[in-house]
Amino acid sequence: MKQLTIFLISVLFSFQSFSQKVNSEDSLAIRKIYDIALTNGKSYEWLDYLSNKIGSRLSGSLGAEKAVIYTESVLNELGLDRVWLQPVMVPKWTRGLPEVAYIETKNGKTNANICALGGSVATPENGIKAEVIEVQSLAELEELGEEKIKGKIVFYNRPMQADLINTFRAYGGAVDQRYAGAMAASNYGAVAVIVRSMSLRLDDFPHTGSMGYGDLPEEMRIPSAAISTNGAEYLSEMLKSNPSLKFYLKQNCMTHADVQSYNVIGEITGTTNPDNYFVIGGHLDSWDLGDGSHDDGAGCVQSMEVLRIFKELNYKPKNSIRVVLFMNEENGLRGGKKYAEEATKNNENHIFALESDSGGFTPRGFSFDTNNANFNKVLSWKPLFKPYFIHSFEKGGSGADIGPLKKEGITLVGLRPDTQRYFDYHHAANDTFDAVNKRELELGAAAMASLVFLFDKYGVE
Amino acid sequence: MKQLTIFLISVLFSFQSFSQKVNSEDSLAIRKIYDIALTNGKSYEWLDYLSNKIGSRLSGSLGAEKAVIYTESVLNELGLDRVWLQPVMVPKWTRGLPEVAYIETKNGKTNANICALGGSVATPENGIKAEVIEVQSLAELEELGEEKIKGKIVFYNRPMQADLINTFRAYGGAVDQRYAGAMAASNYGAVAVIVRSMSLRLDDFPHTGSMGYGDLPEEMRIPSAAISTNGAEYLSEMLKSNPSLKFYLKQNCMTHADVQSYNVIGEITGTTNPDNYFVIGGHLDSWDLGDGSHDDGAGCVQSMEVLRIFKELNYKPKNSIRVVLFMNEENGLRGGKKYAEEATKNNENHIFALESDSGGFTPRGFSFDTNNANFNKVLSWKPLFKPYFIHSFEKGGSGADIGPLKKEGITLVGLRPDTQRYFDYHHAANDTFDAVNKRELELGAAAMASLVFLFDKYGVE
Repeated sequence: MKQLTIFLISVLFSFQSFSQKVNSEDSLAIRKIYDIALTNGKSYEWLDYLSNKIGSRLSGSLGAEKAVIYTESVLNELGLDRVWLQPVMVPKWTRGLPEVAYIETKNGKTNANICALGGSVATPENGIKAEVIEVQSLAELEELGEEKIKGKIVFYNRPMQADLINTFRAYGGAVDQRYAGAMAASNYGAVAVIVRSMSLRLDDFPHTGSMGYGDLPEEMRIPSAAISTNGAEYLSEMLKSNPSLKFYLKQNCMTHADVQSYNVIGEITGTTNPDNYFVIGGHLDSWDLGDGSHDDGAGCVQSMEVLRIFKELNYKPKNSIRVVLFMNEENGLRGGKKYAEEATKNNENHIFALESDSGGFTPRGFSFDTNNANFNKVLSWKPLFKPYFIHSFEKGGSGADIGPLKKEGITLVGLRPDTQRYFDYHHAANDTFDAVNKRELELGAAAMASLVFLFDKYGVE
Repeated sequence: MKQLTIFLISVLFSFQSFSQKVNSEDSLAIRKIYDIALTNGKSYEWLDYLSNKIGSRLSGSLGAEKAVIYTESVLNELGLDRVWLQPVMVPKWTRGLPEVAYIETKNGKTNANICALGGSVATPENGIKAEVIEVQSLAELEELGEEKIKGKIVFYNRPMQADLINTFRAYGGAVDQRYAGAMAASNYGAVAVIVRSMSLRLDDFPHTGSMGYGDLPEEMRIPSAAISTNGAEYLSEMLKSNPSLKFYLKQNCMTHADVQSYNVIGEITGTTNPDNYFVIGGHLDSWDLGDGSHDDGAGCVQSMEVLRIFKELNYKPKNSIRVVLFMNEENGLRGGKKYAEEATKNNENHIFALESDSGGFTPRGFSFDTNNANFNKVLSWKPLFKPYFIHSFEKGGSGADIGPLKKEGITLVGLRPDTQRYFDYHHAANDTFDAVNKRELELGAAAMASLVFLFDKYGVE
């Protein structure tokens, strides 16, 4: 009985310590972080410049190079201990002239809103016109067989699943059509591929994004384009009454030789453990439509803001904290890979990395790729985040750019903002500055700074 | 020792029952509610009509009357047990011609974006031109005294506090300037009042909203207008270098005699307790700028959607569930008062009321004006809401329209969406349909339906 009592008391105490681990000093520090972010934040102003003065930043573009120069100059003004550019060769793909597409029936032509998918080949100069076969999945191609596909344009039209609450799961469930659709269809003799845009909203914006041909020989690489969701709905409807309609598309995108670019890096050197590194980052490149405000201008300026807040607070971290603005997440991940390579080469002990690459929306929490010791530590911090409506702490993935850093002993974290609006803008011409709310952006930066502060103070296990 | 052990065991069990109260039947029911809302929802379509086909719906306006007719017709199509209009006399205030305002210095005139506050009197036909005295609070008037105020325009310029995470708290901390500013300034001989718009964003939209004169005699009622936040910043800056600049404003708004209007009500009659009533509602009226999509078209269509979802689910509630679209929340609360009056008169036993009037943004939770028994019940349901990112369950206020129903034994609840963007649009010309995200709106309706389902099933204590 006595043992049971002791056991029960200890269990109860663990409940209590869980709920009371709101250290008032930490609580005050976090309050200060939020105050600075919300009343004197710089992230929105920086994003304004990045979006409106520079614009889109596809790897290898002039915008990307301007963004490197701009963010380096901003970091230089923050009084960090070190700021530098890390060279990395990146792919260069250009869209060329605006795409042209229409649906042709006996009654005439109706324009369709399309955009070439990133990495796609061009059509012949005069475009491609062919009958359309609509499918819901890559698997359906096998059922149909070459006979029904050969010479046609394959139209992938499986929508993102609206009943999934986390829209990233809905994206994950549909994006194979975009990435692998051309590769798969080419094997059955298709002449081109059009893919329903990865968006849950019905509108007229086509959403680009990366696609690949795997090891298909060049002559089998067929053009691949996204069509707006409204366009997809319309085309599907038309096909019902008129299965032999023709679809025309013309695009003159092109892959060039790799070019030199850079990751932009700034560091506050740690006071007690200068050889332990934390990375806070987003990716500086964006797609070429819109200006990449949410994807991932937001993540870049939030990451920069974390270090700026520490400077304004005069907080001297125990560990070395780096902001890394990665180049080429969208179509190559060269920046992320390069950074990890160099870290290994230089024997740098990276123990923590946090990425923001899910849009500048109201932050809801974080997801952690870490061990139980660190995760339980995070759970004990939950009460500290409650006043800021940060409530979601889950084990899971982190971010693409920091992925290559993964090894035993590193904690990888992804900021998790509200997901409902992200795919309305993702990779489309409406991913622009006006779609970002200043406070939502700032709250994300503050949440990131708070988590980094706690891990820096209490250590990574 | 034995007693301690028993106590500890019971405490532990209560922890356990708390965390395990995820009944799989309830879990499935809620999943169905969300599926319907997200894949077959009608709220967005209804809001489109209300916003784009009807537009603004200030009490006594044609828009308000059209909205009564439209929503009654929608409810009639839902197959409810009863749909009716509840007559209520409402105030009628009209803005008249667009306001004119400018700042005048020796160097010329600069236009200012203002709008009359709801309930304000007009200026004389030729407007008012006077020097400006800027203050940060009503209290400051007393310090300044009549000498410094008489004959001038008082400019209230205390911003909403950006460091508060819940923007409704920031609103609550600033709105006295709008509501009582004219009343206070008139007592010191001011000739008019301009108030910094209740918004956290810097932009060019003036935000209207109700103001009152209390029992000031008619001749002391001075015109009162809101100025956009950018305008307020500019005026304040100008005053620093040029304290004797003049401000001109002209508005010809007017209060008319009360007119007949209606609350719109629909009911699913309860199977086991038909005499116990649940109310789910929002307010049908809006301000006259914009189209009132967030305030409170969203709350109306979400409330209607709750009943539609129950019909589609073929869920037959134990209690009678009413949707009530209240008229005149913005400038009189006549609809809310009338509904409560009639409920008392008819001896209707109202046990639960839920209002959505905080915008159609991602829902975060609910606030409850209820006893501990019901609140603990809600806390035991938390795990059911977790998959839907509904995490905030607090004791607190509910909604203005259902406030008059307050009495012993009724549970009053407010839907609490994310607050960051609300005051960007609140009472301004940009509170329009395009500012509402379909999924965010639908998730709110689903959260409401889920909570109502649980209270209907498990009862209100």
